[in-house]
Amino acid sequence: MDEFDFISKIKPNRIFQENVKVAIGDDAAVYEPSVHKNQVVCVDSMVEGVHFLKTLSSPREIGYKSLAVNISDIAAMGANPIYYLVSIAIPSSWEEHELLEIFKGMQELAEMYQMDLLGGDTVSTADKLTITVTVIGEVEPNVLTLRSNARDGDIVFVTGNIGDSSAGLAVLLDQVAIEDKKNKNYLINRHKKPIPQVKVGRLIAKLERASLNDISDGLASELHEIADASQLGIEINEIDLPVSSELLLLKNFNDINKWILFGGEDFELVGTTSIESWTELKQACDEQMIKITKIGLVTCSHSGVLLKRENQEVIKLEKSGYNHFNR
Amino acid sequence: MDEFDFISKIKPNRIFQENVKVAIGDDAAVYEPSVHKNQVVCVDSMVEGVHFLKTLSSPREIGYKSLAVNISDIAAMGANPIYYLVSIAIPSSWEEHELLEIFKGMQELAEMYQMDLLGGDTVSTADKLTITVTVIGEVEPNVLTLRSNARDGDIVFVTGNIGDSSAGLAVLLDQVAIEDKKNKNYLINRHKKPIPQVKVGRLIAKLERASLNDISDGLASELHEIADASQLGIEINEIDLPVSSELLLLKNFNDINKWILFGGEDFELVGTTSIESWTELKQACDEQMIKITKIGLVTCSHSGVLLKRENQEVIKLEKSGYNHFNR
Repeated sequence: MDEFDFISKIKPNRIFQENVKVAIGDDAAVYEPSVHKNQVVCVDSMVEGVHFLKTLSSPREIGYKSLAVNISDIAAMGANPIYYLVSIAIPSSWEEHELLEIFKGMQELAEMYQMDLLGGDTVSTADKLTITVTVIGEVEPNVLTLRSNARDGDIVFVTGNIGDSSAGLAVLLDQVAIEDKKNKNYLINRHKKPIPQVKVGRLIAKLERASLNDISDGLASELHEIADASQLGIEINEIDLPVSSELLLLKNFNDINKWILFGGEDFELVGTTSIESWTELKQACDEQMIKITKIGLVTCSHSGVLLKRENQEVIKLEKSGYNHFNR
Repeated sequence: MDEFDFISKIKPNRIFQENVKVAIGDDAAVYEPSVHKNQVVCVDSMVEGVHFLKTLSSPREIGYKSLAVNISDIAAMGANPIYYLVSIAIPSSWEEHELLEIFKGMQELAEMYQMDLLGGDTVSTADKLTITVTVIGEVEPNVLTLRSNARDGDIVFVTGNIGDSSAGLAVLLDQVAIEDKKNKNYLINRHKKPIPQVKVGRLIAKLERASLNDISDGLASELHEIADASQLGIEINEIDLPVSSELLLLKNFNDINKWILFGGEDFELVGTTSIESWTELKQACDEQMIKITKIGLVTCSHSGVLLKRENQEVIKLEKSGYNHFNR
């Protein structure tokens, strides 16, 4: 495979953003930032054997997810994703048609947001495919949905349902038996093709103040990050945690609790805001048919994260979510 | 090693750019773009065993170079590098102190340009260390030093000396014997610690029009890219090619020619501009003690790249430079 030839094959045949001055094909890409917008940028890598297995996910699904996890980070800053760059380290075991499928998976998602591929790098590697995606977004200058923004008395909220992604992975790994094909596909899809919560992120950006995280490492871990950064405590109610009917149908209840609290990779948004702003946000989400749930409160009366069980017992939630080094 | 703990160790203790609103520590970084500046962005990966060997380069040198190659791409757009992000896939064979040295090597270079580390990702991998660096720069809106900007009659120029980096690699690999320690260190250093040509890139950005490439894949390959993109031909003179005295001292003359024309990784700049602009550029470079050399002309009388030998023989230069897939 020739590098120049490959690049010509992945080069998009249309550009969505008129602000792009130079796309793929020169030393670097050039774009004009929108007037009065801050730039928001993040990068994440996905490694074969660590973040995905060729036996469980198609190249297209792998591509989709590698872009989705980065768009999710942009959403967690209340921003709009606009551009992306892809650097891919390729072992000889991957065929060109598989690599092109990876880029198609990204393109599928990019088109939804009118995002342009601005560049990247293709290099060879010995063993494991590694995809690194950089995403650039834009946000209004007054918007900073920082983890440190939580205040005493804030409502803690979460979008969508949580725990599905980990359950989907368990299904994929044959650790959980599930008969209903529709339910099975739902959970697997939630793991393979997470939907970044850009729309609700933009609604949260309109609030006077909010703290916000995307759920990549598990609900407990993300709540700990907000509590630590804000130097406050958080208490959530088990009974309020939003869980899909598909997940509830699974028999292994111990695992369900683990998935909901520590599972990660749901790429929903979790955050806090004042009682007044919560009312405003809930109404805006209802109008747009976006599921968002109040799950607890921020407090200055303790640090860390507490969980009130359905039996009213209060337990301390450890941070122990996903941490790539410790796996 | 704990990921959160590691990130706290690589987090810079100062921020150079006052436009940074959120640096490392949230879901994504946020910065305010400078008024009336376009944003310039690129990404490159370096893979252990392909781009560097732990036996030949220190972690600090590996870090330095992984940032340098990206700054060089920004320089080739006439832009100023300002921000960088680093994603690193780490096998268990690398110790934490080595990883911290990689980041110190980047920091050494970043401080020269007052660049801020805005974020990144740390993931584990099975086998080979992979460093992916994203660099963001800024440039005036009227500046586009594209490969397609060459015009018939343009002067072809190159900065600094070429061929040193490949010679340095040959020395490192014991393919070339070299006695003088100072000369040996010079060539090795040119391979390990290339200096991105930001300063001269900024001078070129002031010209009315210029085509520009950085020499990552070898002089012949970069000239082909300019000739192809501009749909013109280029003829260079062997006698004019700028070569260091250290390189000339090496006895193996066949390899010297190969290194100069096809070696790559010198990270000098090569480009073309009008005769009038060349006079202006040469004078500006002379004033700042920057070496820049006229090496040939752009022509519409043929396509591709020709080399006039010292004996006046004219030969066709193939593109065959560095191409990671084909190695």
